[in-house]
Amino acid sequence: MISVGIIGGSGYIGKKLIQFCNSHPFVDAISVYAATTINKALHQIFPELQNQISNLIILDSNELSYSHDLYFTALPHGESLKYIPELIDKKKTVIDLSSDFRLNRLEDYTKWYKISHSFPSLLKNKVYGLADLFNNNEYKYNLIANPGCYPTAVLLSLIPIVKYLSDDILSISTVAYSGTSGAGKSANTDLLLSEMYGNVRAYNVNSHRHQPEIEQMLFSFGSKFPFSFTTHLLPISVGIYSTSVIHLHKEISQESINQIYNDTYAGSYFVRLRETPPNLNWVINTNFCDINVAVKKKVIVITTAIDNLIKGAAGQAIQNMNKFFNWEERLGIINSGVIDVQVH
Amino acid sequence: MISVGIIGGSGYIGKKLIQFCNSHPFVDAISVYAATTINKALHQIFPELQNQISNLIILDSNELSYSHDLYFTALPHGESLKYIPELIDKKKTVIDLSSDFRLNRLEDYTKWYKISHSFPSLLKNKVYGLADLFNNNEYKYNLIANPGCYPTAVLLSLIPIVKYLSDDILSISTVAYSGTSGAGKSANTDLLLSEMYGNVRAYNVNSHRHQPEIEQMLFSFGSKFPFSFTTHLLPISVGIYSTSVIHLHKEISQESINQIYNDTYAGSYFVRLRETPPNLNWVINTNFCDINVAVKKKVIVITTAIDNLIKGAAGQAIQNMNKFFNWEERLGIINSGVIDVQVH
Amino acid sequence: MISVGIIGGSGYIGKKLIQFCNSHPFVDAISVYAATTINKALHQIFPELQNQISNLIILDSNELSYSHDLYFTALPHGESLKYIPELIDKKKTVIDLSSDFRLNRLEDYTKWYKISHSFPSLLKNKVYGLADLFNNNEYKYNLIANPGCYPTAVLLSLIPIVKYLSDDILSISTVAYSGTSGAGKSANTDLLLSEMYGNVRAYNVNSHRHQPEIEQMLFSFGSKFPFSFTTHLLPISVGIYSTSVIHLHKEISQESINQIYNDTYAGSYFVRLRETPPNLNWVINTNFCDINVAVKKKVIVITTAIDNLIKGAAGQAIQNMNKFFNWEERLGIINSGVIDVQVH
Amino acid sequence: MISVGIIGGSGYIGKKLIQFCNSHPFVDAISVYAATTINKALHQIFPELQNQISNLIILDSNELSYSHDLYFTALPHGESLKYIPELIDKKKTVIDLSSDFRLNRLEDYTKWYKISHSFPSLLKNKVYGLADLFNNNEYKYNLIANPGCYPTAVLLSLIPIVKYLSDDILSISTVAYSGTSGAGKSANTDLLLSEMYGNVRAYNVNSHRHQPEIEQMLFSFGSKFPFSFTTHLLPISVGIYSTSVIHLHKEISQESINQIYNDTYAGSYFVRLRETPPNLNWVINTNFCDINVAVKKKVIVITTAIDNLIKGAAGQAIQNMNKFFNWEERLGIINSGVIDVQVH
Repeated sequence: MISVGIIGGSGYIGKKLIQFCNSHPFVDAISVYAATTINKALHQIFPELQNQISNLIILDSNELSYSHDLYFTALPHGESLKYIPELIDKKKTVIDLSSDFRLNRLEDYTKWYKISHSFPSLLKNKVYGLADLFNNNEYKYNLIANPGCYPTAVLLSLIPIVKYLSDDILSISTVAYSGTSGAGKSANTDLLLSEMYGNVRAYNVNSHRHQPEIEQMLFSFGSKFPFSFTTHLLPISVGIYSTSVIHLHKEISQESINQIYNDTYAGSYFVRLRETPPNLNWVINTNFCDINVAVKKKVIVITTAIDNLIKGAAGQAIQNMNKFFNWEERLGIINSGVIDVQVH
Repeated sequence: MISVGIIGGSGYIGKKLIQFCNSHPFVDAISVYAATTINKALHQIFPELQNQISNLIILDSNELSYSHDLYFTALPHGESLKYIPELIDKKKTVIDLSSDFRLNRLEDYTKWYKISHSFPSLLKNKVYGLADLFNNNEYKYNLIANPGCYPTAVLLSLIPIVKYLSDDILSISTVAYSGTSGAGKSANTDLLLSEMYGNVRAYNVNSHRHQPEIEQMLFSFGSKFPFSFTTHLLPISVGIYSTSVIHLHKEISQESINQIYNDTYAGSYFVRLRETPPNLNWVINTNFCDINVAVKKKVIVITTAIDNLIKGAAGQAIQNMNKFFNWEERLGIINSGVIDVQVH
Repeated sequence: MISVGIIGGSGYIGKKLIQFCNSHPFVDAISVYAATTINKALHQIFPELQNQISNLIILDSNELSYSHDLYFTALPHGESLKYIPELIDKKKTVIDLSSDFRLNRLEDYTKWYKISHSFPSLLKNKVYGLADLFNNNEYKYNLIANPGCYPTAVLLSLIPIVKYLSDDILSISTVAYSGTSGAGKSANTDLLLSEMYGNVRAYNVNSHRHQPEIEQMLFSFGSKFPFSFTTHLLPISVGIYSTSVIHLHKEISQESINQIYNDTYAGSYFVRLRETPPNLNWVINTNFCDINVAVKKKVIVITTAIDNLIKGAAGQAIQNMNKFFNWEERLGIINSGVIDVQVH
Repeated sequence: MISVGIIGGSGYIGKKLIQFCNSHPFVDAISVYAATTINKALHQIFPELQNQISNLIILDSNELSYSHDLYFTALPHGESLKYIPELIDKKKTVIDLSSDFRLNRLEDYTKWYKISHSFPSLLKNKVYGLADLFNNNEYKYNLIANPGCYPTAVLLSLIPIVKYLSDDILSISTVAYSGTSGAGKSANTDLLLSEMYGNVRAYNVNSHRHQPEIEQMLFSFGSKFPFSFTTHLLPISVGIYSTSVIHLHKEISQESINQIYNDTYAGSYFVRLRETPPNLNWVINTNFCDINVAVKKKVIVITTAIDNLIKGAAGQAIQNMNKFFNWEERLGIINSGVIDVQVH
């Protein structure tokens, strides 16, 4: 049994972390810290949680207790930096959902986030928690950088092919669409329902901060080809749909590409390989990542769907906690009887 | 431990029943019967359930096994009638989600549903399963008629006031809005996203079949006032929002009306009384019914929100099962750790 | 030919006013004034208008020119008050889309809007521009208070029955739903798509500021019965759907009620009486108000749909301009060939 | 003045054709033909058109009159073939909105549409009406194949770069998203609001019939590079958003690419080149095609938005009619005063 501190608990992702921790069999205490909603009861911020989660009171993140075993930091970039070094210093386990520790190289962080990084040494001493592609024994640091929402979808789609077929790839173009919850609960008139209803728009073209995060990983798996990444906003609240188009130098068969993906994800419960392009609705409210790989001559189209707040954030963070502690990776995330039967 | 048969398992409500039964600690076997998707695996009909529910195969409802302890019938009206009498005859427990046994009087059924009822005697020997208003000891028949989605929301809103203040009521006007899933997965062009996006419309004005179901119950609690019920379609998939306007003969205080509702629902986990009008989103994917009662002089406005597929159908059906067997009413419906801790 | 000044031209309603004036055959000059987007070209604020409206530059509303013949004030309440008295003093025609001059009695304004009214004498010397119910010769003041969006829908629904059947009415309950654009383009997190997607909620229960505006008019037509008005937010951008339930003391026939509505709206192009409840989509992007009146014994249900930004604001304002100047009421609002043929 | 026949007038596109023709200054007679809604008044099929379009009665397409000057065929592929040869034989002008005459080569038609083409000679003797890229004098046949919705968006995006930079292109990947109205008003349960709300899915991956139509045109402008085209369904009714990613062999400057697009569309009213990615809402209910071209080193991202029913169908068809007759291309499509002033 562990005690968990959630720093930044009043946003969309914080709420999911609280819910998952609340139903996790090995978490017996939760404290939620925030900067602006201090001393409020949880159900005042999230009325939907009334009767569901015991009367938790939001604590002041400026008066953080160091009594917990593990901390989730669900904060904007730059903010996590204020808490994590001391937590690491005190030998706590930290799963950071910001982008402060995702990039490996200081110069990349500085270039893309335009702020100086106060503890660059930690950039090397962290696990990049792409949970479905790493074994438990790779969780060897007690700082886990939880991947971004887009990188989760894109990397799970692309790493198998990059790892095994890099030399055959002419180019990769990833075009991804996200619901508005990815932008958080911010008072931005561009995100009003009145503005977004029936609307779609590309944003941060050629400049999205998730691009270096994706490229860093693809490079580590051997990429040698041009890659582009374009993001769009959907007129829905939740979900990411990513379409990657891979042009090849030579033809490849559907069978051989299926073999690669089947082998890669043979032991992965949360990656579901599909025979048709997934529906986004199939993964909403779950930690699943659904992937379809379709080949025609020298073109591969990979379509991938995730829930950006779960698989792209809080769900994967819990999965990372489970893997770090060598627990069953589904604990707390899957509510069905199947897993209950296996665990209790 | 019981074994459950679900007849009509390939629709929106059937899917929810399967999910709830699958995570119910006292259900150890589930068989799903349907008429048109026989021999298919469950995940072929509901791809979102892949990896979540073991490889259940849909069985032929024409070859129903009588080996189960309890049957849910999630069928159109008229269809349930084909199965239920024999099941009752064999001493099985049946929770019927159709409208075949909701009305008490044969003449009402004939008038509103335009078909003859083959087993009218059962109309009297059933429980009308409005779960949050009945004690476990009122479940004295093994046929439970699960209330309609609108009646659930409207009756939970109105019964307290009708019971205690009937003489003071001048008129009640209930205006309710439902998501399109209430119409089932039917190939009706009026329900296409292309037609309904951004759209709203009233339907079945002065002629909705849920009206006699509501009036029958209000009458049993003492109604003596004119009542009207008007239904609308919302451009969303899930949820019912009901607004009841009660004109009174004399003023009443907010305090005294609060007292009535607090007393009625003191022991009810799934009814949440609210200090402000509920958001529909607060109850989606839950079995909660959120109610706000606002008084101003001689007008009371009651706003109520439910998930039509859960509290208005499958969730209440599971709650009825729990109450029938004298189990904790939350089993199988609430997935959070709170209930797990209390139960295991 | 007239010259028009639009004060408050950078909001949702201002944009519609600009578009209508731009296509109006008798408007030959338009100036747009605002407080915060001064010196910007119109297409910088409304990129959708590029190539459609000549390169209009937004002017500073603090440096208002008095050279125009008519002014539209599309401002929050309290703001219109700053401009209108001087405009009236200079013998200009003003159509005010705020609520500063809708109420007739100073005490009502003070009670509901919580600010003091600087020119209460004008409250009496104005036309309440409910365009489809007034003849051109009733436009005898050069200040026209454009009705609120909800009052437009509700009053067009109810005035005929109140006028002819007031004594037979036991109670009226109006339940109305609006798209989010009714709240304007304000940075309110409650109106984010992330919050409102799939959501519905009642708001300002028993306290909406449009209620005294409605009641004032119903009273002038003879109301003697209890009336309530409840507003909700829809998860769509545009449109109002209003449902009024009238309980009667005695039965009335569908024929006689049809007669009343047919007579009232015989000469009204923009009110379309329907044989079934209207779809909201039928009126979106138009100045039409679609009304269905359904009678069953002692209950009348009236369902009504309008576009809140057009019939509920800018479209009715243009219609009021047309009626004030004794022009064809459709000019500038209807773009089809039908009206072109008749006019040119 | 001409007389127009619209064959297939009861669908989404037919309705738009009727509206545009109705407001077109040089169309003085419209007849609408259909197969299933014969003898109904137009407003019975489209209640929103009541009071807007004179009481047009739908005629039987089996009793087609040859008295019109021009015919629009808004029919499924295979159906247009039944009418067009005889119309052409009678020297009528035909604008076909189906895909029966878009492809140039019989073998392509047979391969992609799986039916035999009864009049292949006409495949050569037609204009492919990509209106914004062709001069009026290129309309030399009286059969105009109106481009598909996706091809319109994609070709307007890509032809300039293909024409001028084909040798520098490594690969092009186009990923496009469409609202559900592109699928027509068909009773398909996959298109129900209940199924599509909050949903997204790719479809016809590597097999969409618009791909050969796009490739045929790109080839005619010099394409020598691999091209892929992937289509998705959006949970909205109207609009297409297309994102094309072009990987280049060498870097190109934003200035030089801007020059190419500015030159190409200098005289084009309906193509709006944008400095930021367009919002889909900017073009809805218009005939505009908004394009943004963003370059970064060796990657070009082109984002494009159109209304699929207007620029992608009925609007472009009217524009083609205007160009064929050497009329101002905006007639009937733009309703604002700008164009009225210039025309009358």
